Amino acid sequence: MPATHAMYNTIALVVRPNTSGIEEPVRTVIDFLKQGGYSVVLETDTATHLGFTDIPSMSAQGIGERADAVLVMGGDGTMLGIARQLAPYDVPLIGINQGRLGFMTDISQEDMLPVLGNILSGTHKAERRTLLEGRVVRDGKVIYFGMAVNDVVVSRGAGAGMAELTVNVDGHFMYNQRSDGLIVATPTGSTAYALSAGGPLLHPTLGGIAMVPIAPHALSNRPIVLPDSSEIVIEIGRGRDITVNFDMQTFASLVNGDRIHIRLSPHTITFLHPEGWSYYNTLREKLHWNEYPSTDGKI
Amino acid sequence: MPATHAMYNTIALVVRPNTSGIEEPVRTVIDFLKQGGYSVVLETDTATHLGFTDIPSMSAQGIGERADAVLVMGGDGTMLGIARQLAPYDVPLIGINQGRLGFMTDISQEDMLPVLGNILSGTHKAERRTLLEGRVVRDGKVIYFGMAVNDVVVSRGAGAGMAELTVNVDGHFMYNQRSDGLIVATPTGSTAYALSAGGPLLHPTLGGIAMVPIAPHALSNRPIVLPDSSEIVIEIGRGRDITVNFDMQTFASLVNGDRIHIRLSPHTITFLHPEGWSYYNTLREKLHWNEYPSTDGKI
Amino acid sequence: MPATHAMYNTIALVVRPNTSGIEEPVRTVIDFLKQGGYSVVLETDTATHLGFTDIPSMSAQGIGERADAVLVMGGDGTMLGIARQLAPYDVPLIGINQGRLGFMTDISQEDMLPVLGNILSGTHKAERRTLLEGRVVRDGKVIYFGMAVNDVVVSRGAGAGMAELTVNVDGHFMYNQRSDGLIVATPTGSTAYALSAGGPLLHPTLGGIAMVPIAPHALSNRPIVLPDSSEIVIEIGRGRDITVNFDMQTFASLVNGDRIHIRLSPHTITFLHPEGWSYYNTLREKLHWNEYPSTDGKI
Amino acid sequence: MPATHAMYNTIALVVRPNTSGIEEPVRTVIDFLKQGGYSVVLETDTATHLGFTDIPSMSAQGIGERADAVLVMGGDGTMLGIARQLAPYDVPLIGINQGRLGFMTDISQEDMLPVLGNILSGTHKAERRTLLEGRVVRDGKVIYFGMAVNDVVVSRGAGAGMAELTVNVDGHFMYNQRSDGLIVATPTGSTAYALSAGGPLLHPTLGGIAMVPIAPHALSNRPIVLPDSSEIVIEIGRGRDITVNFDMQTFASLVNGDRIHIRLSPHTITFLHPEGWSYYNTLREKLHWNEYPSTDGKI
Repeated sequence: MPATHAMYNTIALVVRPNTSGIEEPVRTVIDFLKQGGYSVVLETDTATHLGFTDIPSMSAQGIGERADAVLVMGGDGTMLGIARQLAPYDVPLIGINQGRLGFMTDISQEDMLPVLGNILSGTHKAERRTLLEGRVVRDGKVIYFGMAVNDVVVSRGAGAGMAELTVNVDGHFMYNQRSDGLIVATPTGSTAYALSAGGPLLHPTLGGIAMVPIAPHALSNRPIVLPDSSEIVIEIGRGRDITVNFDMQTFASLVNGDRIHIRLSPHTITFLHPEGWSYYNTLREKLHWNEYPSTDGKI
Repeated sequence: MPATHAMYNTIALVVRPNTSGIEEPVRTVIDFLKQGGYSVVLETDTATHLGFTDIPSMSAQGIGERADAVLVMGGDGTMLGIARQLAPYDVPLIGINQGRLGFMTDISQEDMLPVLGNILSGTHKAERRTLLEGRVVRDGKVIYFGMAVNDVVVSRGAGAGMAELTVNVDGHFMYNQRSDGLIVATPTGSTAYALSAGGPLLHPTLGGIAMVPIAPHALSNRPIVLPDSSEIVIEIGRGRDITVNFDMQTFASLVNGDRIHIRLSPHTITFLHPEGWSYYNTLREKLHWNEYPSTDGKI
Repeated sequence: MPATHAMYNTIALVVRPNTSGIEEPVRTVIDFLKQGGYSVVLETDTATHLGFTDIPSMSAQGIGERADAVLVMGGDGTMLGIARQLAPYDVPLIGINQGRLGFMTDISQEDMLPVLGNILSGTHKAERRTLLEGRVVRDGKVIYFGMAVNDVVVSRGAGAGMAELTVNVDGHFMYNQRSDGLIVATPTGSTAYALSAGGPLLHPTLGGIAMVPIAPHALSNRPIVLPDSSEIVIEIGRGRDITVNFDMQTFASLVNGDRIHIRLSPHTITFLHPEGWSYYNTLREKLHWNEYPSTDGKI
Repeated sequence: MPATHAMYNTIALVVRPNTSGIEEPVRTVIDFLKQGGYSVVLETDTATHLGFTDIPSMSAQGIGERADAVLVMGGDGTMLGIARQLAPYDVPLIGINQGRLGFMTDISQEDMLPVLGNILSGTHKAERRTLLEGRVVRDGKVIYFGMAVNDVVVSRGAGAGMAELTVNVDGHFMYNQRSDGLIVATPTGSTAYALSAGGPLLHPTLGGIAMVPIAPHALSNRPIVLPDSSEIVIEIGRGRDITVNFDMQTFASLVNGDRIHIRLSPHTITFLHPEGWSYYNTLREKLHWNEYPSTDGKI
């Protein structure tokens, strides 16, 4: 590996907390990067968890401002959390999975050193992913703002029979929906909750915003994919304990009449994949497409 | 109509509250019944809502013990509430819908007098429906008991990512499920929430207990229909704010380790339908089976 | 193993053809049975394929009339074929799978000898499965009769836009359906083609007949499960090259106006499972219920 | 209406054949157009069916080369047929429905004159729709070429248990699929057959190519939406009587090893909608989104 790197000088590490045995591979990566001439920093929480006092640490904001690439070691949840925080800074992300392949953490630990070497030397596939942003408007004022890598989800409380939502897109009335809730998902989120609720897989290059109802009363209420330019407004009609969440992590409680305005974020995130990476490989492995003959009696 | 009625002497009325203009048809029915020689009583809440002070009123328990048939005027929700309360008493139910056809309130207001006359004179189809009962067991003790005409639903709270449930049937391990929740439904409930979540329609004569997962992580996690004899135990693994509800109306909050034991109730309810009534007619009308060509481009 | 067997004296073997390396385990089973004092016969086609000239062979009919149990070595397809032929004779079936677990061939080759010993000595779970029978009626005459262990399927030809079917049950009009076709399935068939088309799993003890539409135009056209007593009549309305098949194996070409009358067969088949067998184990393993977390991003 | 029209001078009419009573509204439209100063021509088949000998007629090719706009009176099927033929010519299409609203024929007969006046005077919304083209390659040679406005469908014959297909996209292996077939659909086709098979609705502005499996064996085999740039190759593995069709109208029989190469057509079609037209209005009306509360028991 050459000592000079036009693109990547400072590499930040974000590691899944409470992962037994992770110290060793993290240390291996750090040594590898230092030998390659890179500066290495740890995200603050990662530094606390690992107890590596010899490596400088930084907040997510600091990483966003100063790192040239971020290495995430963990699962898709770890990636999801940091990606949302780093979205405003346009710093590329590299995901190394712990245990099993993730949709976003697609480099296995055993291959990580040579793959990482190649990626940092510029031999990689860069892939842009969109994010959503949502504003909760009550009585004409924005009372909450959130961003999502996967999805913005409006859903009823456990004690409520259903949510009644009115949906408008680009100023046009779309429908009144009675359901457990409504998932508004990015292509990244199309392999997460939206998939469980019956939504389609969306190729990241396609873009689009999927609207997937959860257990809708109207049997004809099917998932729909809208263009990236769409301005979606969901108004709370009837229903108790309705909330909106962003990537299942931040929440706002809603009252009748509240409106959630959802659109594409101006920010994007970039994943660096190894050369030769295929989106379809990941899908096939994660969804067991080739190992899953369930209906033998038919043959 | 003859003055003597071997089967039905006392008829109780249960009417949907807050239904504008309902006083007149209710009064029409009462006059019709009195002229036919029947005793008429009102359910307590119904009496309060209507303000009919000339008709004796009774609690649900009193109706169960003394009425020979119960006339429900309203929607399926009204029927659902009273049917669950009357289940222990084996008194037959007749449903007159307000506005549009219900699955359980299948007599229209305009036809009600002649249809009612026929039914009460013994010209009817009697149809038995099963109920479920559920016990919540914590630390070896039953802390909650509920009954359901439609369904027993275990589901996650709005702020929780998912529910993790372990399901055993008749002492056999079935699966661990990650999902928004699990619906355990009767044939009556198969046209309600379970249908929205992707469950099958179950003919009431078939019986059976449908287990329908809500947005399950495992894409292979499909609805399954179990025999009436099944003893289902759902144990709460992981998840916050998990609750169990019975017909969406009574609730219990659950903690990890709680077990919900669900089985068929020893009670049943009986609907009296007009002669010539067809379950398939109701399905077809309610589900718009014949009016709904959505994919014309195909033809 | 005792030398006398009240229940099982003659054991017939049916083996999947063209299965390389199967001769040795078959011979092992035969030796085991002979040492146990059983008479062993081979089904005619099996004898031809294996070339075992020292063992007497018999037609399916002969087996039905004279064998006390039938051992099927192969997959669910092998079991399906012989089960349909043997249905009129009420001889129990035991399934040993080749390679991977089947829904009906649930004994693994490596365990087969002790399991078989136990089953034949009477330590087993006997499980009854229903079958369907169908008659094609044209101009008032039955022109075709078939039986199905899994399903009776009416479907359009490849060149036809759709099938238009009118369905009546027990003399009641159910619906007109435009679709690729309609699957009428037993509980056994509920894990086969019907599952692929969106149907529910039906526990064999429940019984019932599932009607599962294939790609129906009406989005509200959902699977429905009918009682065992149902008499289903499917009339061909419009559509080219429509056929009806029984277990995907025997066929009849249909013309407009043809009616297919489907009901439960008076015959059943009986599977002998090892003591301790659980239907849910098989489902869980075949459907990968516990190995399939697809939506990690959610957690 | 002004006598000069910069954009539209010659208007072609295509009318659904065998539509009783259509002569009168067609004559009304013709008179209206002539009075407005437009030249009117009839498509050859339309002329034959209507018997209007006073209006010049032209082949689809002639219309493509010489007309400035095409008025289609009929249903979506009529539009589908002419749109595919006219795709190479980039002439805009206007759809007037007969009877009920179509996805593509969205102007009602009763409003047609003023709406048409506005559209032709330039007050309209122009909407581009993509098409697919497919090549069947056998032994290295293209043996069939077809275009589709809705979908390219590879499916098994009625007598075959299933189709086994290998799918590659942009040179990457996607999966082997066992199913009844595979639908490759445009956004226009997303409201047709693909919807019946469980596919998502795709907004035309989004673009994208939906791949929707029909009754797939693997329960995890879900619809996926690919970007417009995708080159899809479907190879026939196993299966009898497999065919590929384009908009359900033109066909090719396939043999094992055949490959179907599918990609976006370089052509598009343009619909002219009235000002104020909303895609969501059409969806809502066609899919009965607001009239269809099926699960009242839940409330």
